[in-house]
Amino acid sequence: MKIAVDAMGGDYAPTEVVKGVEMARDRYSDMHFQLYGPKDQVEPLIANNERITVIHTEQVIEMGEEPVRAVKKKKDSSMVKAAEAVKNGDADAFLSGGNTGALLTAGLFIVGRIKGIERPALTTTLPMVEGPNSKFVMLDVGANADSRPFHLYQYAFMGNYYAKAVLGIKNPRVGLLNNGTEADKGDKLHRAVHDLLAANHDLNFIGNVESRELLNGAADVVVTDGFTGNAALKSTEGTALTMLNLIKSSIMNGGLTDKLGAYLLKNTFKEINTKLDYSKYGGAVLIGVKAPVVKMHGSSKATTVRNTLGQIHTMVESNTVGQIVDYFNAHADAMKAIKQEAKNN
Amino acid sequence: MKIAVDAMGGDYAPTEVVKGVEMARDRYSDMHFQLYGPKDQVEPLIANNERITVIHTEQVIEMGEEPVRAVKKKKDSSMVKAAEAVKNGDADAFLSGGNTGALLTAGLFIVGRIKGIERPALTTTLPMVEGPNSKFVMLDVGANADSRPFHLYQYAFMGNYYAKAVLGIKNPRVGLLNNGTEADKGDKLHRAVHDLLAANHDLNFIGNVESRELLNGAADVVVTDGFTGNAALKSTEGTALTMLNLIKSSIMNGGLTDKLGAYLLKNTFKEINTKLDYSKYGGAVLIGVKAPVVKMHGSSKATTVRNTLGQIHTMVESNTVGQIVDYFNAHADAMKAIKQEAKNN
Repeated sequence: MKIAVDAMGGDYAPTEVVKGVEMARDRYSDMHFQLYGPKDQVEPLIANNERITVIHTEQVIEMGEEPVRAVKKKKDSSMVKAAEAVKNGDADAFLSGGNTGALLTAGLFIVGRIKGIERPALTTTLPMVEGPNSKFVMLDVGANADSRPFHLYQYAFMGNYYAKAVLGIKNPRVGLLNNGTEADKGDKLHRAVHDLLAANHDLNFIGNVESRELLNGAADVVVTDGFTGNAALKSTEGTALTMLNLIKSSIMNGGLTDKLGAYLLKNTFKEINTKLDYSKYGGAVLIGVKAPVVKMHGSSKATTVRNTLGQIHTMVESNTVGQIVDYFNAHADAMKAIKQEAKNN
Repeated sequence: MKIAVDAMGGDYAPTEVVKGVEMARDRYSDMHFQLYGPKDQVEPLIANNERITVIHTEQVIEMGEEPVRAVKKKKDSSMVKAAEAVKNGDADAFLSGGNTGALLTAGLFIVGRIKGIERPALTTTLPMVEGPNSKFVMLDVGANADSRPFHLYQYAFMGNYYAKAVLGIKNPRVGLLNNGTEADKGDKLHRAVHDLLAANHDLNFIGNVESRELLNGAADVVVTDGFTGNAALKSTEGTALTMLNLIKSSIMNGGLTDKLGAYLLKNTFKEINTKLDYSKYGGAVLIGVKAPVVKMHGSSKATTVRNTLGQIHTMVESNTVGQIVDYFNAHADAMKAIKQEAKNN
């Protein structure tokens, strides 16, 4: 399999990106990498160029740039060129740690939507601290701010395939993120989505779930609109980080007793960090486009790059995208009917 | 001041409610309490009935009941009677730990909206772990699932007065919870709210804030729609609780080293618990109605009841509601113009 990597995306690019690619190359013998970026910056970083090709690009899309304009104007940027490689069939998937908006734009307009899918969604994998599995997926976490019921209805199917193929969950429990668990809860949008999902029998739909219970295994696939999903994800990240910092600073400011206590508990703290660190699951995937388009955190170091390439390996190997394409092809008429129904309500 | 208390609201009612009321009575010499509930259940729990009157009610609204129907049908319930006492001027504020929906309904339809306010909002106080203050307010966290721009615009003013009067913050920084900090971020709703707030000069509006930064002091007043606010609040609560449980279970399942470490760190853990425990700030306030209507957590014990009564004491003493009434009266024409403007956009 061939992976197009934006070598210039992320705070530690290109150094850590190249390192991570070499680590993935050593781990996955069937992976070939195309690194997009200025040759003079990227090539000197490569220790061993086995299965690694550098493709020269002149421009870089910066973090602060307005996404749509940047993708339109910077035709020779590492991000645009990597996306085009996927579009042209020269690569099977595309990875970047750069400007999220630009990546979504490139995914949507260059790689392109799967036929029948209205809105690709950004999908993230999070740890399930308690519950039947060790992780769950949540989508959309920010590709679309304004959503209609039919969009979320489609997310459920995409998330279902992702959870099966990539997380290896056999019959994923699909839940709708809502402001209460009862069937009639929510705003207009979420009440409509609940009704659409409850009427479908291809999914293991378990009803509404609340954000309080996400980490405790409320569902394996959490369906949400991009605005709420973004808020819930960032609240979760922010709270976890704040608590870890609080513990750290309390210990630092404490006396010898605290420091000794922390030393004795270092394995416990390490275990908690490991459990909560979801960078090991890879990046956020734009699902609903014709190939895996994956955004890793801007702060990704080599290990995260390698992990994300491992996630991409699973996606390409299991043909997650192909399965989604097949489902939406086979159910095209039913989807159209539901879309119409959702509009009429 | 006279406070109407639903003696039957909450998991530990009436026992802990009565205890908490007695604690508050001993702390605040100007507070008089009306306890609504079945006399035979409530009266035997009172150790000293100084400034405490029990008002007999027959019915109790249960946690699972459909709110609007329950409030309509159970005319002789502790909750409805307590709300009516406020409406009739027999009490200055109303506290319950019972069915949230029923409390919101009673607040809205019995106590009644302040003239000029379209939608009262549920307001919660959360700890600011870093930043210029020790706490901040967020509203709406769940009174209204479907919202229009003008509703959020009004929340900003109500939150502003609450932060000044109850939290004692002089010039509260008002932020809009959004999916990015840039001015053009968000869905239609939040983009419109941003523009309305940015055009106003009575508030110290600092623009958009993200949920990742809430606990780190992003703003003193966080304005949000009830659906997103509910998700952000519950994610924050859920994550904090999950992490504390994770630490606890790691230590319990660990060896002697871990247990000794935990013992040495017990002050640190206590400090963190204290910092994050926002039950000390009281309950969630329905702002925008004619008197303080306060919901405390269903799991509240006596200390939380006392704290919430302390919060109510501050609200009544500072005349928070009166200040809001005055502002909306003085700006009635401007509000109408903005409402029209928001509709036209």
